[in-house]
Amino acid sequence: MIIQLQQDISADVKQHILQEIKKVGFKGNEVQTQSGHYIVGIGKREFDIRRLGQLKGVADIHRVSDEYKLISRKWRVEPTRIDIGDGVVIGEGSFSIMAGPCSIESEQQIQLVVDHLKANDVKIMRGGVFKPRSSPYAFRGLGLEGLQMFYRICRESGIKIITEVMQVSQIEEMMNYVDVFQVGARNSQNFNLLDSLGEAQKPVLLKRGISGTLEELLQAAEYIFSNGNEKIMLCERGIRSYENAYRNVLDLNAVPVLKAKTHLPVIVDPSHGIGLRDYVEEMSLAAVMAGADGVIYETHQKPEEAFSDGQQTLNFQESERLVKRMRQAYALRESF
Amino acid sequence: MIIQLQQDISADVKQHILQEIKKVGFKGNEVQTQSGHYIVGIGKREFDIRRLGQLKGVADIHRVSDEYKLISRKWRVEPTRIDIGDGVVIGEGSFSIMAGPCSIESEQQIQLVVDHLKANDVKIMRGGVFKPRSSPYAFRGLGLEGLQMFYRICRESGIKIITEVMQVSQIEEMMNYVDVFQVGARNSQNFNLLDSLGEAQKPVLLKRGISGTLEELLQAAEYIFSNGNEKIMLCERGIRSYENAYRNVLDLNAVPVLKAKTHLPVIVDPSHGIGLRDYVEEMSLAAVMAGADGVIYETHQKPEEAFSDGQQTLNFQESERLVKRMRQAYALRESF
Amino acid sequence: MIIQLQQDISADVKQHILQEIKKVGFKGNEVQTQSGHYIVGIGKREFDIRRLGQLKGVADIHRVSDEYKLISRKWRVEPTRIDIGDGVVIGEGSFSIMAGPCSIESEQQIQLVVDHLKANDVKIMRGGVFKPRSSPYAFRGLGLEGLQMFYRICRESGIKIITEVMQVSQIEEMMNYVDVFQVGARNSQNFNLLDSLGEAQKPVLLKRGISGTLEELLQAAEYIFSNGNEKIMLCERGIRSYENAYRNVLDLNAVPVLKAKTHLPVIVDPSHGIGLRDYVEEMSLAAVMAGADGVIYETHQKPEEAFSDGQQTLNFQESERLVKRMRQAYALRESF
Amino acid sequence: MIIQLQQDISADVKQHILQEIKKVGFKGNEVQTQSGHYIVGIGKREFDIRRLGQLKGVADIHRVSDEYKLISRKWRVEPTRIDIGDGVVIGEGSFSIMAGPCSIESEQQIQLVVDHLKANDVKIMRGGVFKPRSSPYAFRGLGLEGLQMFYRICRESGIKIITEVMQVSQIEEMMNYVDVFQVGARNSQNFNLLDSLGEAQKPVLLKRGISGTLEELLQAAEYIFSNGNEKIMLCERGIRSYENAYRNVLDLNAVPVLKAKTHLPVIVDPSHGIGLRDYVEEMSLAAVMAGADGVIYETHQKPEEAFSDGQQTLNFQESERLVKRMRQAYALRESF
Repeated sequence: MIIQLQQDISADVKQHILQEIKKVGFKGNEVQTQSGHYIVGIGKREFDIRRLGQLKGVADIHRVSDEYKLISRKWRVEPTRIDIGDGVVIGEGSFSIMAGPCSIESEQQIQLVVDHLKANDVKIMRGGVFKPRSSPYAFRGLGLEGLQMFYRICRESGIKIITEVMQVSQIEEMMNYVDVFQVGARNSQNFNLLDSLGEAQKPVLLKRGISGTLEELLQAAEYIFSNGNEKIMLCERGIRSYENAYRNVLDLNAVPVLKAKTHLPVIVDPSHGIGLRDYVEEMSLAAVMAGADGVIYETHQKPEEAFSDGQQTLNFQESERLVKRMRQAYALRESF
Repeated sequence: MIIQLQQDISADVKQHILQEIKKVGFKGNEVQTQSGHYIVGIGKREFDIRRLGQLKGVADIHRVSDEYKLISRKWRVEPTRIDIGDGVVIGEGSFSIMAGPCSIESEQQIQLVVDHLKANDVKIMRGGVFKPRSSPYAFRGLGLEGLQMFYRICRESGIKIITEVMQVSQIEEMMNYVDVFQVGARNSQNFNLLDSLGEAQKPVLLKRGISGTLEELLQAAEYIFSNGNEKIMLCERGIRSYENAYRNVLDLNAVPVLKAKTHLPVIVDPSHGIGLRDYVEEMSLAAVMAGADGVIYETHQKPEEAFSDGQQTLNFQESERLVKRMRQAYALRESF
Repeated sequence: MIIQLQQDISADVKQHILQEIKKVGFKGNEVQTQSGHYIVGIGKREFDIRRLGQLKGVADIHRVSDEYKLISRKWRVEPTRIDIGDGVVIGEGSFSIMAGPCSIESEQQIQLVVDHLKANDVKIMRGGVFKPRSSPYAFRGLGLEGLQMFYRICRESGIKIITEVMQVSQIEEMMNYVDVFQVGARNSQNFNLLDSLGEAQKPVLLKRGISGTLEELLQAAEYIFSNGNEKIMLCERGIRSYENAYRNVLDLNAVPVLKAKTHLPVIVDPSHGIGLRDYVEEMSLAAVMAGADGVIYETHQKPEEAFSDGQQTLNFQESERLVKRMRQAYALRESF
Repeated sequence: MIIQLQQDISADVKQHILQEIKKVGFKGNEVQTQSGHYIVGIGKREFDIRRLGQLKGVADIHRVSDEYKLISRKWRVEPTRIDIGDGVVIGEGSFSIMAGPCSIESEQQIQLVVDHLKANDVKIMRGGVFKPRSSPYAFRGLGLEGLQMFYRICRESGIKIITEVMQVSQIEEMMNYVDVFQVGARNSQNFNLLDSLGEAQKPVLLKRGISGTLEELLQAAEYIFSNGNEKIMLCERGIRSYENAYRNVLDLNAVPVLKAKTHLPVIVDPSHGIGLRDYVEEMSLAAVMAGADGVIYETHQKPEEAFSDGQQTLNFQESERLVKRMRQAYALRESF
């Protein structure tokens, strides 16, 4: 059950609503976000919902049978569109392209990618500075300094930045240099990180876990929303399977199903989803037709020399062709 | 190693080649298909391939490092196109649509589907008469009589038939009524059935196993080819996973990867791949963009009354829209 | 719903019962096995079961809510024990050991294994003569002749034979030489084969599919039982997973859960379950403690020279030690 | 490559070794733990290892081809035994039992469990105070206060505490109240947490990820070791699969394989591994025979009233029987 409160609600009136919720056997969780003030009621008992709907201070009330509440399409029918600054908006009605290297490596590299993006009217650059690596001895990214360099060059060029955050203590130090926080697959159920990002008031792209269910992904998003941040997008990035012919199995089934279950935008990562450069184009175009609101893929001036993930990274020529074709595919989809 | 023999080769000359193959430490398997005469050499030893290439009777020779040989793109670069009769051809250069109910139910049902297909210029109808069912007590199809009824109506209308064969003894009795034999996911490693279909000289659509690897699918196809039948198409139909939000995970990664590994056509079954009627369109369109040579999906005049699989079956209105949109998507893909 | 009929029931009385079943909205399936005569009623409607229980000719009646019926422990509480001849019995109350090579190779090999088994009081020998192989070019077994050789040597020594059957047409020709038919993982949903084995009146060991669910395994067993053969044992042999450190994941969870769901014996195949010779002992002992009624494992006089599966095959020394330890572990389990 | 340094090595001598490592094309990572001082060399180039072995300050040198190094059995053959205080030691040569509720709930509950453990000579109690929960609205544990209560009661009784740590900032506040930090499956690749636990000098039990590979688990352990903490144990707790008959698939294959790959102790969690109370005993006993160094399972005075995981929690009677039987099984294993 979700109760939308009136914006100017007094503490007394709110208290009264919370008491009434308790009386019908529910636990009320108060949620205050950038754009709304809600009480999420958790419970199973049957009762006449109008009893609460008529209370003073209640703007709207809905039953939501899903395990997740605030991110459910059963509550909010309108798709969420997220403005990440300067009119760059992610969500239904447009198709967002985010591209860039796996790892931020150098000023020169950032500049080359930025130039490539600008030439193709791509507005968001990805690039890792904190890298989750299986081995403790592997390259773990340029860190905060790398991010500041990344920021300096992108700001000049008007390019937005999405980059991975790995732990709570990084949020504050990254805050000023980032447009979208990315939560990686390995942290998709790092609940403390999700809690903190909920308080951070900055857009978050949340990747599905390595073998994460859609239900888990949606509940992870609920963590962020219920802590105060409505600016969330979900990302399908391939799931682990028995098949060894590719790195992961890109689960495009997830796209239309997530779009039906939640009002949040759904992004696809074809680079990790197949892990093989030769087929990133096909899978990106498939993602468009499956209904994705955007893609995030890896590109680098010289993939074979990239610090990480070179085998799944497009060169600029491939990237340019991909961007054009995705836009044509999206135009076709919109014409339906 | 594959040796293509000259068509008019004498028994003596062939015998000599087989002896020479043995000398270099390989086992030679003779294969005679509808369109070619080959020796497949199995072995690991290194030797100068020209030694065999220069022999009398040898038209061509190739090393193939894959576990499968005759179906490998490393040997035959040109994509295979399969004529299933009356100029209906499946394979690169066209996009094939096969549609129809899960189960053949009645004359009236067949006629309604046929009319729907003809109205939309769809040339191949699917429909099961032998049904593999988890429970022995479930409806197991109308059998041979159902197939004869199916054939009678389709022949009049010029519609081609694809239907599942479940065991060796059915091949002969089905032979005259079928245009494409379908091998279901549960029989994808029924090697005796594959052997027999190799001798059957009728096109075969081979579905990937429930948790089948691409390697297993390709080797299953090699069974058919090496027994004499080159007319094989592969079908991605979703794999089993931990995710319970849908019946299977449609693995579209398989499409471009299979297309690179083999010269055989690749078909996608979005109905089983997601198992939810509402999302069959999105997944079909995604399959087109992933590079599929065709789709096979379920449609029925009244899905909610279908004998089986109703929950993943389109009604005719949905089916008509899907056909139109797939053709537009295919046209876009071809324009690239 | 299962109705056990009186053994001397007349056709008229049975017909009346079938009519009454129809009246309450159920479909009645008549089943006649080696040891019983039943009607399995399939349907969902609620009704007073005593209405049928009081009919003439009805010995007993039970509701069974499972999808499988005759093999359910909800119906038959007593564990099934299968006499495979000469007092060799498989099932609760004893621990059965079946051992032998992956493939039957030669007279000498059979004799060596037989001697090893006799020296260790093992009464059942495994060995394949029809081999399901991923590649059509691989060794596919010695066939019927190999089986006859296998039979000749084992009969003299009083050793029982279990071997794989791959297709319907083999059943009759193998019938006289086999004590237990094995159905392999790839044929676990070959429903025509299961039907025919139901009519064959010879014990069957049914392996779980490569990614088979317990539900599917149990329904596959129901195919055999409902066609007339009660002598079925189930076999856990490892499931396919994302983990590459071993061939399969031996799912010992399946053992106590299957034992609770069905009255049939449950056997474990540790050789395929882990696929690595060094750890077959640990996994066999674990299987004993998990509650298995027996194990089937691979042993060979010289594993490194075996025609197939050498990497998971024990030599005789390892096999001897394993047999002793399993018996000690079983004795401990029985003491609980 | 691992170089064990002499304990009294001077900075100059160490610097010289690091330079020589660089000269042969390797990257040297210095590691100082509770009990040793090492340089881990990462690189692929071939060279004569004696060149480094002869250097001043080098106590020992080994090539290790595994991706993980310091935890590899290829380097350290002797099994690691971990003293968690007061002579309670975990590792080969003894069988460790850790038991307790999923969640710490109250003083009374702790006391009841402690009494049960003492009565059965179990020395380590599990119990969560920080709970990772899929839903943000679920009970998330009693937190630090709960831990202090837990500590107070256990200290009096001489019972050791193992409990889950979820984020870096908790380590310091939990430090004084914990004997073993547990890292949960969802945090198994939370690399920042692993880094920090490496610096924490307190034993760590590291659970395998929800779909974690053994390779990933071992590399996660390498994170901890390479940051300075050798006191690590690994825990198999079931993997995610397609099978819905139980919560997870307890992968006992992992036990002997991990024992061969690493010198660290291996613990099994049968409660999460099957998720069904009725079968925890069978799976625990199977774990003993598979070679586990211990088990961690859930018990509660009234499982049906537990705050979480009641369906997989044993009551004290079941727990008592389990402890006795595991000890008998372990005694048998040791007699082999």
